[in-house]
Amino acid sequence: MTEFELPPKYITAANDLRSDTFTTPTAEMMEAALEASIGDAVYGEDVDTVRLEQTVARMAGKEAGLFCVSGTLSNQIAIRTHLMQPPYSILCDYRAHVYTHEAAGLAILSQAMVVPVVPSNGDYLTLEDIKSHYVPDDGDIHGAPTRLISLENTLHGIVYPLEELVRIKAWCMENGLKLHCDGARIWNAAAQSGVPLKQYGEIFDSISICLSKSMGAPIGSVLVGNLKFVKKATHFRKQQGGGIRQSGMMARMALVNINNDWKSQLLYSHSLAHELAEYCEAKGIPLESPADTNFVFINLKAARMDPDVLVKKGLKYNVKLMGGRVSFHYQVTRDTLEKVKLAISEAFDYAKEHPFDCNGPTQIYRSESTEVDVDGNAIREIKTYKY
Amino acid sequence: MTEFELPPKYITAANDLRSDTFTTPTAEMMEAALEASIGDAVYGEDVDTVRLEQTVARMAGKEAGLFCVSGTLSNQIAIRTHLMQPPYSILCDYRAHVYTHEAAGLAILSQAMVVPVVPSNGDYLTLEDIKSHYVPDDGDIHGAPTRLISLENTLHGIVYPLEELVRIKAWCMENGLKLHCDGARIWNAAAQSGVPLKQYGEIFDSISICLSKSMGAPIGSVLVGNLKFVKKATHFRKQQGGGIRQSGMMARMALVNINNDWKSQLLYSHSLAHELAEYCEAKGIPLESPADTNFVFINLKAARMDPDVLVKKGLKYNVKLMGGRVSFHYQVTRDTLEKVKLAISEAFDYAKEHPFDCNGPTQIYRSESTEVDVDGNAIREIKTYKY
Amino acid sequence: MTEFELPPKYITAANDLRSDTFTTPTAEMMEAALEASIGDAVYGEDVDTVRLEQTVARMAGKEAGLFCVSGTLSNQIAIRTHLMQPPYSILCDYRAHVYTHEAAGLAILSQAMVVPVVPSNGDYLTLEDIKSHYVPDDGDIHGAPTRLISLENTLHGIVYPLEELVRIKAWCMENGLKLHCDGARIWNAAAQSGVPLKQYGEIFDSISICLSKSMGAPIGSVLVGNLKFVKKATHFRKQQGGGIRQSGMMARMALVNINNDWKSQLLYSHSLAHELAEYCEAKGIPLESPADTNFVFINLKAARMDPDVLVKKGLKYNVKLMGGRVSFHYQVTRDTLEKVKLAISEAFDYAKEHPFDCNGPTQIYRSESTEVDVDGNAIREIKTYKY
Amino acid sequence: MTEFELPPKYITAANDLRSDTFTTPTAEMMEAALEASIGDAVYGEDVDTVRLEQTVARMAGKEAGLFCVSGTLSNQIAIRTHLMQPPYSILCDYRAHVYTHEAAGLAILSQAMVVPVVPSNGDYLTLEDIKSHYVPDDGDIHGAPTRLISLENTLHGIVYPLEELVRIKAWCMENGLKLHCDGARIWNAAAQSGVPLKQYGEIFDSISICLSKSMGAPIGSVLVGNLKFVKKATHFRKQQGGGIRQSGMMARMALVNINNDWKSQLLYSHSLAHELAEYCEAKGIPLESPADTNFVFINLKAARMDPDVLVKKGLKYNVKLMGGRVSFHYQVTRDTLEKVKLAISEAFDYAKEHPFDCNGPTQIYRSESTEVDVDGNAIREIKTYKY
Repeated sequence: MTEFELPPKYITAANDLRSDTFTTPTAEMMEAALEASIGDAVYGEDVDTVRLEQTVARMAGKEAGLFCVSGTLSNQIAIRTHLMQPPYSILCDYRAHVYTHEAAGLAILSQAMVVPVVPSNGDYLTLEDIKSHYVPDDGDIHGAPTRLISLENTLHGIVYPLEELVRIKAWCMENGLKLHCDGARIWNAAAQSGVPLKQYGEIFDSISICLSKSMGAPIGSVLVGNLKFVKKATHFRKQQGGGIRQSGMMARMALVNINNDWKSQLLYSHSLAHELAEYCEAKGIPLESPADTNFVFINLKAARMDPDVLVKKGLKYNVKLMGGRVSFHYQVTRDTLEKVKLAISEAFDYAKEHPFDCNGPTQIYRSESTEVDVDGNAIREIKTYKY
Repeated sequence: MTEFELPPKYITAANDLRSDTFTTPTAEMMEAALEASIGDAVYGEDVDTVRLEQTVARMAGKEAGLFCVSGTLSNQIAIRTHLMQPPYSILCDYRAHVYTHEAAGLAILSQAMVVPVVPSNGDYLTLEDIKSHYVPDDGDIHGAPTRLISLENTLHGIVYPLEELVRIKAWCMENGLKLHCDGARIWNAAAQSGVPLKQYGEIFDSISICLSKSMGAPIGSVLVGNLKFVKKATHFRKQQGGGIRQSGMMARMALVNINNDWKSQLLYSHSLAHELAEYCEAKGIPLESPADTNFVFINLKAARMDPDVLVKKGLKYNVKLMGGRVSFHYQVTRDTLEKVKLAISEAFDYAKEHPFDCNGPTQIYRSESTEVDVDGNAIREIKTYKY
Repeated sequence: MTEFELPPKYITAANDLRSDTFTTPTAEMMEAALEASIGDAVYGEDVDTVRLEQTVARMAGKEAGLFCVSGTLSNQIAIRTHLMQPPYSILCDYRAHVYTHEAAGLAILSQAMVVPVVPSNGDYLTLEDIKSHYVPDDGDIHGAPTRLISLENTLHGIVYPLEELVRIKAWCMENGLKLHCDGARIWNAAAQSGVPLKQYGEIFDSISICLSKSMGAPIGSVLVGNLKFVKKATHFRKQQGGGIRQSGMMARMALVNINNDWKSQLLYSHSLAHELAEYCEAKGIPLESPADTNFVFINLKAARMDPDVLVKKGLKYNVKLMGGRVSFHYQVTRDTLEKVKLAISEAFDYAKEHPFDCNGPTQIYRSESTEVDVDGNAIREIKTYKY
Repeated sequence: MTEFELPPKYITAANDLRSDTFTTPTAEMMEAALEASIGDAVYGEDVDTVRLEQTVARMAGKEAGLFCVSGTLSNQIAIRTHLMQPPYSILCDYRAHVYTHEAAGLAILSQAMVVPVVPSNGDYLTLEDIKSHYVPDDGDIHGAPTRLISLENTLHGIVYPLEELVRIKAWCMENGLKLHCDGARIWNAAAQSGVPLKQYGEIFDSISICLSKSMGAPIGSVLVGNLKFVKKATHFRKQQGGGIRQSGMMARMALVNINNDWKSQLLYSHSLAHELAEYCEAKGIPLESPADTNFVFINLKAARMDPDVLVKKGLKYNVKLMGGRVSFHYQVTRDTLEKVKLAISEAFDYAKEHPFDCNGPTQIYRSESTEVDVDGNAIREIKTYKY
């Protein structure tokens, strides 16, 4: 029987700056998994799954939590649960993951139109940005009134200023709008800003809190909100095919980092990002946005830098990149930081002689690398995806 | 039995600049209606309906046409018919009617995401605008690849430059994208630019050609495309509830203006608009876009003009307005043009003393007029809708 | 320029038993149309459209009415308006038009699953039929709870017994379910049973009341319900592309028969159907259901009768048939009744020698007639559709 | 801080006859998990996930496989991937899980209507059942043509006769219809009938093969089909929120039983079921269908047995039941078999004195158990769901 076509064995995320989703389960997590509960979570009978849900809900000051296998699932069922009867639309940042990277779930599941807004300050949406794009429910039968504002914290690695969130929340309450947070990296926002999850919980009607990114769990997220909201979201989770059976092991492994000193782990990854940002600034390498937390976004357009060259320069130094976004996480080593500095500056120098104009909606160019890198070293095919 | 609560009798559109949909059936049309065929169009057995469909299809150089009761119906079933299997998205101008004023049909019927693009030149989308926002189908499972470009001609009253359309069409064909045209006012574009409908027909895979706006028919539009496209669109028309029975009278009345000198009628309405635009420019009243055809868009934001005051000033001179868009059509009189000049300049002067900052997505503010206008004259409630 | 490919001129519905939608506008209607109002109904400014809506609403004892271009449109927007947030399902008769002949609108517009029930008595659903198929909302996340019961009166020409409707209504109210009526032929039910429309209005939360079938109007229906319901339905009507402009003529023509002695007209058509039913029974020709009103359903399966032969036998006597359903309406002549008796009995005799077993979901076989009928007479291609 | 409200610790599935989803991970599986790969499966970089997918695909003779977190997810994305452009419908058994227990996914994700068919033989759909309910694509714009037949093997524990599947497949190919199999218990069908998975793979275009039911894995299923099909299904999996990161452990644990002697394990569970079926028959306790494999369906309606009493009688003997379906799996002990015999016969005797008429669409009554069982023993609340 012919051999399976298997990918190469994934050894470590220590040199993987493509995304913080590459964090790998630790030995401590594996040990914990052996003790996990074995109930069927669809029937609400798995202890560790319930413990995880209530732990994260309590941290966010919410009545209930729902374990979901991905952030896309928790975002999309949260938005669907807030929306009642169309025609309606949701408003979000034009870079929001719910709009750009969740494969049209908003249209398919929620039948929702989207008003994607470019922040006037370039970094995050202000209340004024929202008010000037919000579609009021004034009885106009042509329209699709805005029913929900979906924000992302962090977005593009930027920490959402708390006072702006408070202003937006007050206005939402006055206008009967729901406020959801894609908290794929809300742990990073909390760690960096010192704002406790509970305070974010007071602002947002629901938060999708990812576990498998900076927090290092194998899979999943927890969607938090009030009891009625989570009960209905559970129905949508089943409808989406997200109802899973013995999830105890996955829940127990996620609880390990939650019960550890996650703030220090995350702040370590932020420090690497801050250092790289300073390095770039010193070198005149333009960045897209302030590197508040674990991401550094190299402005490929302004630098006229070919993302494919950047990826290959990374490989030259045995560092994995996917494009303009450099994603630090707690498993990245200082050695990798030093190497990525070299890769970026060489790619920047290369761009000065070979300016590249990428004309696509995102700075990330699907890197169809050839067999040979710029320096002639053989490279296996890299399947890189947009961040 | 209590009397019905009926609206006031609508007498004439001569002074109605709210929209060109207010054009009223002419005596000639009424006469024609008496001779109309009486077959059941759902079974394809109504002569005048088939005659209208084939007349307009032939004018646009297309194989077939489908009579629809509204432009929203023909636009939405056209887009649905071009789209096969989600996840996908369509790309259009951020002001496009299919996106802003068709009550989320794109999400509900077609499960489509929308990439609304702000034209870099402020007037119409260039090929570069499209290429820099187009989502390629590169296998990225996060995305919703662009499958269709939907343009509008005219949009905001602006005639789409033919050469730009030709460039966009060539690129669409290279990239396997369909190109639809919301031709609510394509007659206006053709009349003003001299580009025959047939040439537009060569560029667009489908065109929704409205009959009830500048062309003065009571209801409807004709969706033109190839035979296979129209056959499938017929199925979606029935699904949307748009299959109608004895439509002969409506078809026959639409054919009257199509067989008349429609170009002169439209060019007359354009001349009124051009004259108003010049008047405004002379007075320093800012406009949003060039008044190529029958619309003049007063830039309420730049003029800091309260649309509600503008509407009431119009009523003072017995001219009906809905906000910043002044919509001429062939039934508007020169007398109305003179009166609307006065109304606009008084509203502009009023704004200099009472600057108004409208913070909404459209310049049109839903005019909740009081019982009394600015000059004390009693006014019945106006139900005005966004243009 | 080549001639248009036009269908033959449709002269009269006097011999057309395919469907009561073939009723043609009368001279009286054409006269009335000349006096019709000319306002834009999307803005609520057309007098005759508002008059039609309030007339029919008042007849049904409802707060408001909404003119729609087809029964499919009013049925589908009614059901969508009653449904709030999925997952949910509606329950109806397995032969219901909303389920079998509205091109999947329930799934596309309303995202609704359907529980189609076969009536235990073979004619209409009883409360027990409904209770034994109803999906309770008991928190089971696997299910799609029943939110709405959609009944049809008449269905298959059968008048729904009032007392059964009253029982079903009471149970619906106890269980928080909405009750919609597809009233494509509710006029026939009212005329035959003597139950006033107003009494049906007390039972059903909404009724889609067709105008273009037995009532002979060119197009449309009126959806009646409470004010809040109709306001939201208007939004869905626009979304479906059903918002039409100068609909005064169509409204005025519909009002003609409403203000005439429509009961006598309908009872005349019922009398023809009753006579044909008695004729069939006397001949041993099996019927599918009691011919309460204007339909006679020949049981093709039991009679082992080929619908294609029946259609062609009809043509032999210049009578148009589409299959097992014989649809009488007030424009059918007694002469046509006598001829269809001959056609049916000849087809029945033919079946005795050429038994035909149609194995399709409906008794109607899409009649791909050849150029020559059974008796050798040349026949134009008939495009017949399922009833 | 108040204690969490945790469910009781789930110890063993040995006495759990509610569903075979309650099978718990074995020590062997836990050991295997420790060696699992740690790549990110969204990027196709996890070795064990790819190995699982290719193992199951190869067993079913298919080009590719896709690991999904649930059978609902793999069923719904399979059906969506086969369907191109609505309006369309799918045809299935009225008891099919895709129709009754996947929370309206067919309407929400696929916009599909469903034709649920009652098998004429009471057990499984024959080709004739399908042909007499299939909606042909004959151009009828009222309809929603059948595009896909979704069968379930086993369904209701019944093994689908191979020759019937072969007949159905041939007819589907003639009529251009896709054929999907919900293989939640296809392992049971294969074990019992001796038909290899590969032969089922030749018949069905796609099969959703569950791992977490009789095969005992913690979560998931593998959807198998051709390469193009699986590539598109991957896009829908991401859209549904089913893209998960480090799934190596879950994949490795599923491979344990696949690489063990699963047939013996399953046949053991079947033997228990057969024994119970014989016991019931001997006692005159009516069954709904032949107990071919691991399920015994007590006909509650015919036995006039209250499912709530049955559940409580089970608890009296420390055996967990959810209603009429008794689900055996390889972790159930002979002791449990003996006890469930007692529970069922006592409930049956109880029914003779207290006949119960359950009037709901399914024989399973949501068991709102009181604090005390029929024999006075205190019982914790059971959250039982429909099978």
